[in-house]
Amino acid sequence: MIFLTRHEHFNAAHKLFNPAWSVEKNEEVFGKCANANWHGHNYDLIVTVKGEIDPDTGFLIDVKKLSTILQIHVCDKLDHKNLNLDVDFMLGVLASTENLAIAIWNQIVPHLPTNVKLHSVKLYETPRIGVEYFGH
Amino acid sequence: MIFLTRHEHFNAAHKLFNPAWSVEKNEEVFGKCANANWHGHNYDLIVTVKGEIDPDTGFLIDVKKLSTILQIHVCDKLDHKNLNLDVDFMLGVLASTENLAIAIWNQIVPHLPTNVKLHSVKLYETPRIGVEYFGH
Amino acid sequence: MIFLTRHEHFNAAHKLFNPAWSVEKNEEVFGKCANANWHGHNYDLIVTVKGEIDPDTGFLIDVKKLSTILQIHVCDKLDHKNLNLDVDFMLGVLASTENLAIAIWNQIVPHLPTNVKLHSVKLYETPRIGVEYFGH
Amino acid sequence: MIFLTRHEHFNAAHKLFNPAWSVEKNEEVFGKCANANWHGHNYDLIVTVKGEIDPDTGFLIDVKKLSTILQIHVCDKLDHKNLNLDVDFMLGVLASTENLAIAIWNQIVPHLPTNVKLHSVKLYETPRIGVEYFGH
Amino acid sequence: MIFLTRHEHFNAAHKLFNPAWSVEKNEEVFGKCANANWHGHNYDLIVTVKGEIDPDTGFLIDVKKLSTILQIHVCDKLDHKNLNLDVDFMLGVLASTENLAIAIWNQIVPHLPTNVKLHSVKLYETPRIGVEYFGH
Amino acid sequence: MIFLTRHEHFNAAHKLFNPAWSVEKNEEVFGKCANANWHGHNYDLIVTVKGEIDPDTGFLIDVKKLSTILQIHVCDKLDHKNLNLDVDFMLGVLASTENLAIAIWNQIVPHLPTNVKLHSVKLYETPRIGVEYFGH
Repeated sequence: MIFLTRHEHFNAAHKLFNPAWSVEKNEEVFGKCANANWHGHNYDLIVTVKGEIDPDTGFLIDVKKLSTILQIHVCDKLDHKNLNLDVDFMLGVLASTENLAIAIWNQIVPHLPTNVKLHSVKLYETPRIGVEYFGH
Repeated sequence: MIFLTRHEHFNAAHKLFNPAWSVEKNEEVFGKCANANWHGHNYDLIVTVKGEIDPDTGFLIDVKKLSTILQIHVCDKLDHKNLNLDVDFMLGVLASTENLAIAIWNQIVPHLPTNVKLHSVKLYETPRIGVEYFGH
Repeated sequence: MIFLTRHEHFNAAHKLFNPAWSVEKNEEVFGKCANANWHGHNYDLIVTVKGEIDPDTGFLIDVKKLSTILQIHVCDKLDHKNLNLDVDFMLGVLASTENLAIAIWNQIVPHLPTNVKLHSVKLYETPRIGVEYFGH
Repeated sequence: MIFLTRHEHFNAAHKLFNPAWSVEKNEEVFGKCANANWHGHNYDLIVTVKGEIDPDTGFLIDVKKLSTILQIHVCDKLDHKNLNLDVDFMLGVLASTENLAIAIWNQIVPHLPTNVKLHSVKLYETPRIGVEYFGH
Repeated sequence: MIFLTRHEHFNAAHKLFNPAWSVEKNEEVFGKCANANWHGHNYDLIVTVKGEIDPDTGFLIDVKKLSTILQIHVCDKLDHKNLNLDVDFMLGVLASTENLAIAIWNQIVPHLPTNVKLHSVKLYETPRIGVEYFGH
Repeated sequence: MIFLTRHEHFNAAHKLFNPAWSVEKNEEVFGKCANANWHGHNYDLIVTVKGEIDPDTGFLIDVKKLSTILQIHVCDKLDHKNLNLDVDFMLGVLASTENLAIAIWNQIVPHLPTNVKLHSVKLYETPRIGVEYFGH
């Protein structure tokens, strides 16, 4: 069993806002992250897959293929977008890093070859704050 | 003459949009950076000042004092804000990294002690794209 | 189950010294790390907690709360201190990175909310040397 | 149980080439990585070992000893070398990052002290592409 | 005057070899960098241009245009190549980082718009060794 | 004219303390940096030299020779040392980053070959605080 990791990058705007709460309650809980006019981040996405090495190629998976999957199903949908307004797979979801990491996991899984399993999605919203999800 | 550099950090939303142009022209020129719903960045701000060392302290300037100036007059006004809507010193200015670096220069200069000169403002909007301004 | 990671930073002096040994034996075993006049490091502290996401906030834990816990119970006690002399929870402990990581674990655990479990404490004493502890 | 990580670095040339295939098939599968005249990388090697802390030293293992093992049995054999031609433990092996990580694992294991177990070998061929092996 | 910096990346093989010298002299002068079977690097290329801001766009130059110039005239010609054998603008040139930085400068200059001047080419062959050229 | 940069690293203890002042005055001015029991840093040293390229080697200077000069005359004297007590060229000097950068400049200059000029010494005491000296 070998693990392969690919780093991707996207820039997005978001705010933290629970529509079931008043504006005041949102500001009390989320502080400046609730700014009505949005703020944004350079997100670092670190995806790890696992499986057996193909003896013909020496690869678990061609990292260019993995990168293409991440590009089409994750980064193109998030890059230079508003996480609360523009992203089909985040509609109705509170745009926290935790929820975004899980949503990204769900975006990737259907597109991996059958011999490659998704191991983890790690998502940094700043260089000092990251979230990791292992699928359960 | 010694040069002292301090790195700061802020997260903000923005879009690139020239109000004198149609939406179509903006999208043609600025591409996905013109997204009406905004996008955002983790900005890295690298400020260098210069001058003579104070023999009593061995300091050009106490870096905590420099950091406080940057916090009050730059980062607190930009962090978790919308550069196009929320920032007094950016109102009416196209929110490019170039223009933001110059605006930050102008925010800092009035607050430095007289023996300390601002040398450069370097501003990275992604780890791979940065702008530097030397005041003229 | 989601994992949330926070990076903190502190600067400290220390030396490696076993008081049961002679100075010569300490120098033989610890080399330049035994320098009687101390040396020091910029420590990078990487703390990971785990648990379920609160559906109201989208958070495992507000990362500002986690950061405050780390600030009060770890970084304020270590930053700009001498690990061998100034730190109550390191007194009588050999100030290796291994022992410091375990001591930091014990400093954090009592202060986490009951729904949040400490997963790991990773401590880098240089960019190339790190230690990780998982609590057992 | 404590985990200790050491980062090492080496620069090498390689190409991806399966000798059972035609040049055309190699180019089709491996693209520019199959360039007959080679290409190369700065490899980042991140080795983690685990075990109990020695109470006399506070160490799992003296990190200088670990670094010496990695230097002699891994880095000296790979640094400024051609992975396909110059490295005894890679002869006949397709020089993918996956295979190299496993070969490095096998180079390290025989040389660790009995109280120290190898936990993982992580190998980055670029800052965005890495492989990790846990020994099974 | 504003300065804009773009970071690019390429991986290449090379060796240091002066054809006017014997193999022995090459090995004596260049050491392991003269390895006949090549070695390689992940090169980090940091290009800075300068000029006036266009008031209509807030840009010195659209960084995507700068990146395209660097891609076509520099990175596509160097990435996954052998610097001594595969690169038209390095033929007959000793493949040191110094000479490569100057050659890259000459590749870029003819393709910049007239209002944009090349300020510097910085080229790192490892994270700890870099060269910078300012055009004279 | 070409510029060559080499990054080195050392770990040291220090405190900021002006012996002409009372302990109270030192604490008032230097805050926690005046801690009597010392604190410490991982210093990053970035040295840039300049001159003409030797056409026989393609080098300004063999970077291994530059690194050896830095090792012998700077890093070996500072690494795992106390800047206030153990370093001959810092005795009687307030151990600020500013003063240390200038002292390092003076350590390097006498040992460079005549065709190589020292351009700058940049010294980071944390990843966010650095000083640069150009020799005048």
